[in-house]
Amino acid sequence: MREIGIGLLGLGTVGSGVVRLLQDNQAKISSITGRRLTIKRVIVRHPEKHRDTKLDGVPMTANIEDMIQDPAVQIVVEVMGTIQLAEDYIKRLLQAGKHVVTANKDLIAQKGGELVDIAAKKQRDLMYEASVAGGIPILRTIVNSFAADQILEVSGIVNGTTNYILTQMNQKKVSYAAALKSAQDLGFAESDPTNDVMGIDAAYKMIILTQFAFGMSLKLENVTVEGIDKVRLEDIQQAQSLGYTIKLIGDAKEIDGKASVSVGPTLIANSNPLAAVQNENNAVVVKSAAVGNTMFYGPGAGELPTANSVVSDIIAVTKDIGIGITGNTFNSYRHQVAIAPNSAVKSAYYLALKVRDIPGQMLALTRIMAESKASFRQIFQTSSDGDFARVVMITHEISLAQLEKVQEKVAVLENIELISSYRVLD
Amino acid sequence: MREIGIGLLGLGTVGSGVVRLLQDNQAKISSITGRRLTIKRVIVRHPEKHRDTKLDGVPMTANIEDMIQDPAVQIVVEVMGTIQLAEDYIKRLLQAGKHVVTANKDLIAQKGGELVDIAAKKQRDLMYEASVAGGIPILRTIVNSFAADQILEVSGIVNGTTNYILTQMNQKKVSYAAALKSAQDLGFAESDPTNDVMGIDAAYKMIILTQFAFGMSLKLENVTVEGIDKVRLEDIQQAQSLGYTIKLIGDAKEIDGKASVSVGPTLIANSNPLAAVQNENNAVVVKSAAVGNTMFYGPGAGELPTANSVVSDIIAVTKDIGIGITGNTFNSYRHQVAIAPNSAVKSAYYLALKVRDIPGQMLALTRIMAESKASFRQIFQTSSDGDFARVVMITHEISLAQLEKVQEKVAVLENIELISSYRVLD
Repeated sequence: MREIGIGLLGLGTVGSGVVRLLQDNQAKISSITGRRLTIKRVIVRHPEKHRDTKLDGVPMTANIEDMIQDPAVQIVVEVMGTIQLAEDYIKRLLQAGKHVVTANKDLIAQKGGELVDIAAKKQRDLMYEASVAGGIPILRTIVNSFAADQILEVSGIVNGTTNYILTQMNQKKVSYAAALKSAQDLGFAESDPTNDVMGIDAAYKMIILTQFAFGMSLKLENVTVEGIDKVRLEDIQQAQSLGYTIKLIGDAKEIDGKASVSVGPTLIANSNPLAAVQNENNAVVVKSAAVGNTMFYGPGAGELPTANSVVSDIIAVTKDIGIGITGNTFNSYRHQVAIAPNSAVKSAYYLALKVRDIPGQMLALTRIMAESKASFRQIFQTSSDGDFARVVMITHEISLAQLEKVQEKVAVLENIELISSYRVLD
Repeated sequence: MREIGIGLLGLGTVGSGVVRLLQDNQAKISSITGRRLTIKRVIVRHPEKHRDTKLDGVPMTANIEDMIQDPAVQIVVEVMGTIQLAEDYIKRLLQAGKHVVTANKDLIAQKGGELVDIAAKKQRDLMYEASVAGGIPILRTIVNSFAADQILEVSGIVNGTTNYILTQMNQKKVSYAAALKSAQDLGFAESDPTNDVMGIDAAYKMIILTQFAFGMSLKLENVTVEGIDKVRLEDIQQAQSLGYTIKLIGDAKEIDGKASVSVGPTLIANSNPLAAVQNENNAVVVKSAAVGNTMFYGPGAGELPTANSVVSDIIAVTKDIGIGITGNTFNSYRHQVAIAPNSAVKSAYYLALKVRDIPGQMLALTRIMAESKASFRQIFQTSSDGDFARVVMITHEISLAQLEKVQEKVAVLENIELISSYRVLD
């Protein structure tokens, strides 16, 4: 049986998972691909730290040139977890004629287009299933199974850390700070959790999903991003009492050929299957013209789930090599970028306000809503500490432009403060 | 742009959906496949009934020979909805060198192996994504995304009719007969619902899933099948009060290299995402060694969802033709059939019993359990009409062999009748 040589950049959690899956499932992989996949070379920053690894006789060095110049390596797996270095390495590897599989979502979201172009020019494969939603095979599914359909919206829970924190706040009735601390203690959140809790990680994943669903390559500044750091236990409990669960939802939809992509805390109706996604799990809902709603649920991270997506890519590349058709882009759907105007982006909203407990404030508030033509379907005054009352309302569907008008008008009032405005999804 | 000629066998709901999707998404499909897909010929039993169809100038006849001998047709879509005729037609089409896409689950479950062999011998593609779970792309996902992983269990709700009936019983507190009638009135159940309510349809789908997950081609007699026709409203309500929802679950697992496949009413813990799958929707959970649990949820039937799966297959075949690699089987994973013995198949069970309300019966019952080494974690006597009491228990995990021993021993007792024994899934 002919051999395909694999190279590894990085040997952390995901890298070790890839080694393990390739070793454990060698017979099955060979029966599917008709090739024996063998790890031929590893590049790590500190080779001396990996002396005890289970890769007998595989050269392990720190110099990327060793990989670039090794003719035995055909497919390189990049799981280093940095951006700049990975970008440089991947470019040089593609230029040298290697196929590349990466799990690097930050890099793909920021530089994907450039790398895809180099790969196409050199007729090499570049795949990155593991970059979105870890163990859920969502990218390949969009390419293969929605090709003849028109995707209208892709939404979901694509960050496990924030979903873990929100689940803990909801179930254990603890504050954001306490839930974050427990997530850090358990390894579900990093010591600097900024990228996760501020929604940046989710935004990068939504950029990749938007490329697959609508063929448009957006930049981070095209995505409206709000993190979970300001979500209060009161919001979560208020939402529950109304039949909703607060989740950090990434949402990409097409409105008249233009994209609208956002990440932010969202109230999900408890009858919606997304509301039931607990802890560090992820789920992506694809809404399409022909099929309607489908949901893909599973672990969003973790050594072996992520490694499985990487190995699925390796197998796909191996098949392409066998057939002689490398160089087709992972997702060939292309569409010019156009961003929907705020007047076209519509949703119901949950608004939480702090209102000074003096007469006339409700009147001022409802007058602003009426002036902005924003009607509401529910309004509650939930508590007052003597000085301030907390008022919560759920609006009917309004445009983002109308919401901004309401926000502006409330901002100039002395006695009313808008604390949070979250989307509502039924 | 080069053309690929499509032929249609049948022009019912799914056939019309395929026509519509091919017409509506022509540009996108061409941009992905590099080919123009054109419907060249249609075979229907009564051509005169389809005069008003939107297929101008496409020849429509009743004779399969017209399709077999048309050199313009490369891919034939079989959506006739019969078995015998479809088997004969598909064999002759494959022999004549046509590629075939079918949604015919009964045929694939019963004669799949034979058809796959003919296709391979003639180097032609045979695909059938639409045969399982309608709009959910589960077969292609297993092939592409779990290739390097070891699937341990595939389970789920794969019949929309029965899930609709059970959902109605649960939500509206109506009897099985009333829920079936409303399903029939709404078109979710056929006038002869036997195949659906007795679990046969689900069993065929599980046979196909077992082939993909474990490489084993089972027959219907290898599957333990129980329908929902004996599920009582009392069972559903009793289950709810214990935190479970009753669903018709198809389950295929591998135990020490041997398969165990069953279809039957099952108590699903409400924390399990399968419990939240409502009405006619389907969901399949894949449990694998590396990834853990993933769930794929969506519409299990319907004109356009099913048609989308058919068109995904057409696109896959078109790509294979373009690359020149037709004749690879849809799923190449092969493993010898072995069925796990009842002593190895373990589960917790819900047992509902009718017990004559005289002293000593509980003692007799608990003695039988003890003799069969079957312990229980919960037992309730829920009601008595004076003569008979209803007793419900949930066992700890026991083997199917132990369950059968209990069933046998209870069967000889005069004063105790075992009404139902359903699996319990946490």
